[in-house]
Amino acid sequence: MHLAGTYIGVVGPGDGASADDIADATQLGRLIAERGWVLLCGGRAAGVMAAATRGAVEADGIAIGILPGTDRRDAAPNLTIALATGLGEARNAVLVSAADAVIACGMNPGTASEVALALRAGKPMVLVRPTPETSRFFATVASADTLHMADDAASAITWVSDHVR
Amino acid sequence: MHLAGTYIGVVGPGDGASADDIADATQLGRLIAERGWVLLCGGRAAGVMAAATRGAVEADGIAIGILPGTDRRDAAPNLTIALATGLGEARNAVLVSAADAVIACGMNPGTASEVALALRAGKPMVLVRPTPETSRFFATVASADTLHMADDAASAITWVSDHVR
Amino acid sequence: MHLAGTYIGVVGPGDGASADDIADATQLGRLIAERGWVLLCGGRAAGVMAAATRGAVEADGIAIGILPGTDRRDAAPNLTIALATGLGEARNAVLVSAADAVIACGMNPGTASEVALALRAGKPMVLVRPTPETSRFFATVASADTLHMADDAASAITWVSDHVR
Amino acid sequence: MHLAGTYIGVVGPGDGASADDIADATQLGRLIAERGWVLLCGGRAAGVMAAATRGAVEADGIAIGILPGTDRRDAAPNLTIALATGLGEARNAVLVSAADAVIACGMNPGTASEVALALRAGKPMVLVRPTPETSRFFATVASADTLHMADDAASAITWVSDHVR
Repeated sequence: MHLAGTYIGVVGPGDGASADDIADATQLGRLIAERGWVLLCGGRAAGVMAAATRGAVEADGIAIGILPGTDRRDAAPNLTIALATGLGEARNAVLVSAADAVIACGMNPGTASEVALALRAGKPMVLVRPTPETSRFFATVASADTLHMADDAASAITWVSDHVR
Repeated sequence: MHLAGTYIGVVGPGDGASADDIADATQLGRLIAERGWVLLCGGRAAGVMAAATRGAVEADGIAIGILPGTDRRDAAPNLTIALATGLGEARNAVLVSAADAVIACGMNPGTASEVALALRAGKPMVLVRPTPETSRFFATVASADTLHMADDAASAITWVSDHVR
Repeated sequence: MHLAGTYIGVVGPGDGASADDIADATQLGRLIAERGWVLLCGGRAAGVMAAATRGAVEADGIAIGILPGTDRRDAAPNLTIALATGLGEARNAVLVSAADAVIACGMNPGTASEVALALRAGKPMVLVRPTPETSRFFATVASADTLHMADDAASAITWVSDHVR
Repeated sequence: MHLAGTYIGVVGPGDGASADDIADATQLGRLIAERGWVLLCGGRAAGVMAAATRGAVEADGIAIGILPGTDRRDAAPNLTIALATGLGEARNAVLVSAADAVIACGMNPGTASEVALALRAGKPMVLVRPTPETSRFFATVASADTLHMADDAASAITWVSDHVR
């Protein structure tokens, strides 16, 4: 099986994810799979990671989890591949490095670090349904052609489709 | 020489640092050294990294640079110790992990990733002279007892002194 | 697609791989795929990495490449998934951390680091057709129940099958 | 304080270090300090790490510990600087990357990974009092101008002095 592949990172809160975050992440996973893209996420069995994984896998897609720890016990159970990096929080940099574009649903400090690293790397970055505080802040540190604010998962995917190589 | 040590990370823009960022970083470096603390920074010969290093070293302090690349050619020349990690952007996570508290002067995507990782790790975090957008955003993802907004370098150091173990 | 999964790292020289190393790696890739396991390798388009990938993919298996750099341009072209970690040589630790067992074909310094990290982590480790110097050295730092010397790829796979959880 | 600096990594077993390893590491630490070089080590309060640190610090030198975990509780108490990287075993790659040359006393899997990574990076590498198995193996994967076998700590330091830039 060869996946030439476009890899899309979906990032967002684990335990503190809202119902909207979960719904958006599930739909993002499904849409990523339907495009034939690969989903990359943080891999834990919680919140946005678990929801995006479920969405992708239910649509017959591929979901790769980049885990912080040294074993796979806390991985989302339906991941296609779970990679236990052993790097702790430095795994966020690996997830972003491996992705062609990144989409965030919801926000917390870990998510903010991934958004920031994606902007640092100049990767196409979408914030889905950001709060006013989130969108105003990241707009001050990113150029408009790299960072997009999307009203929903579908428009996030459309924008990514136009911006990945 | 034994440095029981409190390690303070100072983070901020390299090439795009403003005059205020440079002035604040220089003063932070000096005040960190005067407290007998160790300065940790990103180590490159630019902007906030170079200014904080100069401030610390001119006050007879210790400045440690955590560099992204595999050699020390682009290190700030007066660093006490320059560590070429070879990790690329994942070195931001190492800098934050090694620090007891983090202070940011100025803002860009790389700096935002370090602020976010510090909040993620629950470390005392100060933003010096943040823009309204910056302070409002990070206030939405951090608790008030972990994140402080400071009007100047001196009050940043006072707050850190009260909050590091 | 859900791959509950056993992940087997295959490591060995890139440019300096011998004809035996290439033949063994190709067969290992095929046998790993036939068992329904996932192949993990260093991902570059050279030597053992490319051969193991080809073997796995030709047998309809999954091959994951853990690349040192920040892009996928130097990845083996038929990898199922190529992850550009951006970590440099620290990616060797990620590959070993993510694997349930590791098999080495051929030897060079990079390969030796992966064998050593696998032994350090207590993972089942097989050396295929090791030189006398290689087998004698690693036998001095590993217990006999963790490290196995195999005469060929097939017996390496049999031993791994008995030793992974 | 400015340390233009040559950084020498000293690696070796922690809990399983022999009396010879401890004596060699202590002397290496002292000789590194007397040359005005900086000692880099794995930083834990055990074996070769603790002994090299003690030797360097008692000779008024600088000892930097590159720790695997996220806090400094298990650091050798007299380190000049203890950096808690949070990277787990990937910290071995950071230690080697940051060093100009590496010296090993004693051997175990973790030490072997550091020796191998140093050879991979083409750094001057000395094995002090290697077993026949160790010296024969590493001689098969390294060139004679990069790898040296030393009978004692003093001759290791002399060879390093001739081979670091």
